[in-house]
Amino acid sequence: MERKAVQDFYPDDFNVCYGCGQRNEHGLHVRTYVSGDDTTATFTPQPYHTAMRGYVYGGLIASLIDCHGTGTAAAAVYKAAERDLGSDPPLRFVTAALHVDYLKPTPIGVPLHLRGHAKEVKGRKVVVEVVLSAAGDVCARGDVVAVQAPAQLGSQGA
Amino acid sequence: MERKAVQDFYPDDFNVCYGCGQRNEHGLHVRTYVSGDDTTATFTPQPYHTAMRGYVYGGLIASLIDCHGTGTAAAAVYKAAERDLGSDPPLRFVTAALHVDYLKPTPIGVPLHLRGHAKEVKGRKVVVEVVLSAAGDVCARGDVVAVQAPAQLGSQGA
Repeated sequence: MERKAVQDFYPDDFNVCYGCGQRNEHGLHVRTYVSGDDTTATFTPQPYHTAMRGYVYGGLIASLIDCHGTGTAAAAVYKAAERDLGSDPPLRFVTAALHVDYLKPTPIGVPLHLRGHAKEVKGRKVVVEVVLSAAGDVCARGDVVAVQAPAQLGSQGA
Repeated sequence: MERKAVQDFYPDDFNVCYGCGQRNEHGLHVRTYVSGDDTTATFTPQPYHTAMRGYVYGGLIASLIDCHGTGTAAAAVYKAAERDLGSDPPLRFVTAALHVDYLKPTPIGVPLHLRGHAKEVKGRKVVVEVVLSAAGDVCARGDVVAVQAPAQLGSQGA
């Protein structure tokens, strides 16, 4: 059986995000997996996701941290509530603030590994730390302040 | 004569960024224009750049702020040095840190307007504030800490 990501449990209406929506055909399809108290994701950039030649574009790094952060937030709140992932009512988070420190240039052409950890779960707000590594080096570190989305957001027309 | 953007002056080797490189055929092609002491950019997201339906994906907003921030940093340092944009040696900035506050959901289907301002220019480091508006509302605010890239970065192989 294929292992399920947090995003596989998002309701269809909430699953159109360019970064992590499994129903966005143009998107990046970030997939967040629960691993003990942490989460993991792996993403291999396309050759055109460059900043300078040979290095990954910072906006992509921010995007990966953002989506892995909101996925991690959802997983943390399901866990805190002792609920199964995807059980009703659905929990979906949006980003209130994002901070990324680019610690060193991120090489392109190798998989990027992300590890997320919910540092704080307080009501509808979750603060997630995400560390991004490439070829064994930590290249970026991020903080995502995620807030639970109102249920009606998912069904608003485009 | 077509008005030139800061990115039009980037040397070819530095002009491959997915966000703002004019030589990246897959990229977003953010263009930063000098406007007095500030800078401006306009970007209309594609319909698939969604977060929730009807709203722009936060990773794209971070990407726009990032690239408009480094473009603004370059413009500010040329100006501080009383040099013309694009004069030699070229100045190109990379992001050391990025912070974005998502103030309200950003509607999709309308142009996004960015205004940048270099708050601090200190040696090789520039701190830029970027405000993003849509349909007359400020939707996001960002700070970009940009650092001048070493000249050899532009010519490294992919």
